Amino acid sequence: MMARSEGSIFKLCFLCSLIANLFFGVNLYLGRRGVGGWKWSSDEVNVQGLSWSGRAAAEAESAAARECSGHGRAFLDGAVADGRPACECNTCYGGPDCSLFLSSCSANADGGDPLFLEPFWKQHAESSAVVVAGWHRMSYSFSDQTTLSQELESLLRKLHSQVGNAITDDKYILFGAGSTQLLNAAVHALSHLNSSFPASAVASIPYYAGDPARWKNATNTTGDIIEFVTAPNNPNGQLNEAILHGPNVKTIHDRAYYWPHFTGIPSPADEDLTIFTISKLTGHAGSRFGWAFIRNEEVYQRMNTFLQLNTMGVSRDTQLRAMKLLKVIIEDGGREIFEFGYKTMTKRWDRLRKTLSMSNRFSLQKVAPENCTYFQKVREPTPAYAWVKCEREEDKNCIEILNAAKILGRGGSVFHDDDRYARLSLIRSDDDFDMLISRLESLVSKEDGAKIM
Amino acid sequence: MMARSEGSIFKLCFLCSLIANLFFGVNLYLGRRGVGGWKWSSDEVNVQGLSWSGRAAAEAESAAARECSGHGRAFLDGAVADGRPACECNTCYGGPDCSLFLSSCSANADGGDPLFLEPFWKQHAESSAVVVAGWHRMSYSFSDQTTLSQELESLLRKLHSQVGNAITDDKYILFGAGSTQLLNAAVHALSHLNSSFPASAVASIPYYAGDPARWKNATNTTGDIIEFVTAPNNPNGQLNEAILHGPNVKTIHDRAYYWPHFTGIPSPADEDLTIFTISKLTGHAGSRFGWAFIRNEEVYQRMNTFLQLNTMGVSRDTQLRAMKLLKVIIEDGGREIFEFGYKTMTKRWDRLRKTLSMSNRFSLQKVAPENCTYFQKVREPTPAYAWVKCEREEDKNCIEILNAAKILGRGGSVFHDDDRYARLSLIRSDDDFDMLISRLESLVSKEDGAKIM
Repeated sequence: MMARSEGSIFKLCFLCSLIANLFFGVNLYLGRRGVGGWKWSSDEVNVQGLSWSGRAAAEAESAAARECSGHGRAFLDGAVADGRPACECNTCYGGPDCSLFLSSCSANADGGDPLFLEPFWKQHAESSAVVVAGWHRMSYSFSDQTTLSQELESLLRKLHSQVGNAITDDKYILFGAGSTQLLNAAVHALSHLNSSFPASAVASIPYYAGDPARWKNATNTTGDIIEFVTAPNNPNGQLNEAILHGPNVKTIHDRAYYWPHFTGIPSPADEDLTIFTISKLTGHAGSRFGWAFIRNEEVYQRMNTFLQLNTMGVSRDTQLRAMKLLKVIIEDGGREIFEFGYKTMTKRWDRLRKTLSMSNRFSLQKVAPENCTYFQKVREPTPAYAWVKCEREEDKNCIEILNAAKILGRGGSVFHDDDRYARLSLIRSDDDFDMLISRLESLVSKEDGAKIM
Repeated sequence: MMARSEGSIFKLCFLCSLIANLFFGVNLYLGRRGVGGWKWSSDEVNVQGLSWSGRAAAEAESAAARECSGHGRAFLDGAVADGRPACECNTCYGGPDCSLFLSSCSANADGGDPLFLEPFWKQHAESSAVVVAGWHRMSYSFSDQTTLSQELESLLRKLHSQVGNAITDDKYILFGAGSTQLLNAAVHALSHLNSSFPASAVASIPYYAGDPARWKNATNTTGDIIEFVTAPNNPNGQLNEAILHGPNVKTIHDRAYYWPHFTGIPSPADEDLTIFTISKLTGHAGSRFGWAFIRNEEVYQRMNTFLQLNTMGVSRDTQLRAMKLLKVIIEDGGREIFEFGYKTMTKRWDRLRKTLSMSNRFSLQKVAPENCTYFQKVREPTPAYAWVKCEREEDKNCIEILNAAKILGRGGSVFHDDDRYARLSLIRSDDDFDMLISRLESLVSKEDGAKIM
């Protein structure tokens, strides 16, 4: 986790919008009707007719208009400077307007903050904005007495059908505060009914499990085993499959990265328990929104009970926002966002491969090309993380070597693997990635016997 | 939980806003400056200059403009009818515009859905609206690497200082997805470090504990005891105090109802672990936002770890909205919202007392008047719930008698008390409360020997 990305595209975008608005401003249209369902296009918006929402809109635009030199951003709920929200600068940038480059700072490739998608949302500012009225959904429940928005559920099912990455028919759905809460709910639900201990939990190495302490007491006497299968895998991007099978084995499929940004989609997931998160789909890690598809009714009921007792469902504010973001994606069948994500990740992998191709010291994981039913071609995977190996005999601790070269990442032991490996995040902001490449180039150029100098 | 309140005040409000807007529309002001910090007043809003936020604003206003006959509301994320979000009707109302009164339906006084405050937010539509940009806070963390908004923390501390209901100096603060998650976190944190079982949990009868199954396994061998103290108490409104003391006793103070809507504020809470929720302060139960003040650093750290592993903090969308709502309250030191809440609850209690004053069969709890340092007077408490007692020898199950008279509530045994008691919620919508009074009047009028017929 951590850090921020830049806002240069937004600047242009804001100008375009301003020009468009001035144009439509003289063509003010006084009617209020929606066409093609519930949505407005620019030329139908009667901004002059706005009443209670105008002030909030002006506040948001004023915050957004802070440019922060393209190396930061100002948020509506940020600290205030000069009567407006202050700039919050990307890693390695500082000063009131983020124009100060902090040349001695470390490149941050540590957490999986998915800021690589931020420019996409700045480009789609108009369609992705949402106005929350003061009295929006104050109740504990929706009108069907659940804590789940049916509209949001429909959009999620539609998206999976468009992308072809999950079969959702005949499956229950639950929402959670990120995949984190759903993983907790799933472990609870799959633990033996008659045991107050969780079942034993296993995963193929290397694997990511948040704080590994969560699973350390996970041994019981009933013989039940829960296998976590993350596909594509964090950290190495492999399309893992379940290893254990049998009546005592329950499998939790973490599909956080199973989107065309990162991998080909060979076939739709059709598993007993599959977890997705908006974090690696739209990049909104901070919204804490995930969902799970569950085949078995009892497992669904037990997860639901856990979620109700834990938080009484997911914030309705978050569900409203997730709905608006999904509408933008679904509008063109995901075409724009996945092309944006795929292109961005491909460019980053190209730069990374090129940089490390000069090196004898560091190597990258190999992930096999996959057929992608979404893009209708065989494609190279573009995983969210580089799983770097230090090849020299004496480089037993890879992350220490990277840290010494001012590169932050995570050592192999965090993923229960050899410390000869380290994970570098490739999904952070452009600034973070640029800094990473720059530090790697410098590191590689100092190698004795680097292939080219 | 459940149900909805009316929107008649809003109708008037919307008209006023529209007129105001037309007035300001001809006085368009092209500058963009904030005065007195980060906030705009109506006459400074340049709605014509809006670019990317105008469409979202128009969508929200269009949804809000559905009147639903004053007996329902349309939300931005509701099901669509005629190209706009459909009306969602209050209990006992139906039809596409909620104009159909369902005369045979039951009065809903069951859950604690705090819709009594909905009209307040409709009256403050302009100041409470918030625009969430598509790229708002996508990161896992704020710029200080935490998952808590510092601005929101400041507002919460300021509010408690204004209201005088909690001393927050030298205390840690944590946010949760409602008080529910914080109660879970607190139980986890206060359980003995060396025991994987929670400590024994106790509370004075009657008490509310969500699903009581949560506590049923709460016995351990270490002798640790957690006492839950809810003050004012749910269901009976008493300002409970801790009963147990000693080195093995840890106390969790649930202060959800410790606001001037419901009770006098004799003195600020100054406890080791105190939990509040926005649900009973602003009425936004659906937002799932609560906070806790914690004196001890180790307890704070353990709760924080629980919250991070459970959900990785509270949705940033929710935090943004909570901030906007709190700003409205704090602006006048809480004067307007607490007067609104106190007046509404006083009127409701007056009507309820008057209705039951005719009865020999049903009685209400007595709660002692309290000095209120906030309103600077001694005042009658106006609790969120009526704790009704069926006085007749043969009326051993009070909720059954109420249900037969088409009144929904909760029986005494839900609160671990005698079924001779029942809880009726008084904080729901005006429609729900009106229906409750109507059903009670009818029930009382049928009493043999009712005081007046």
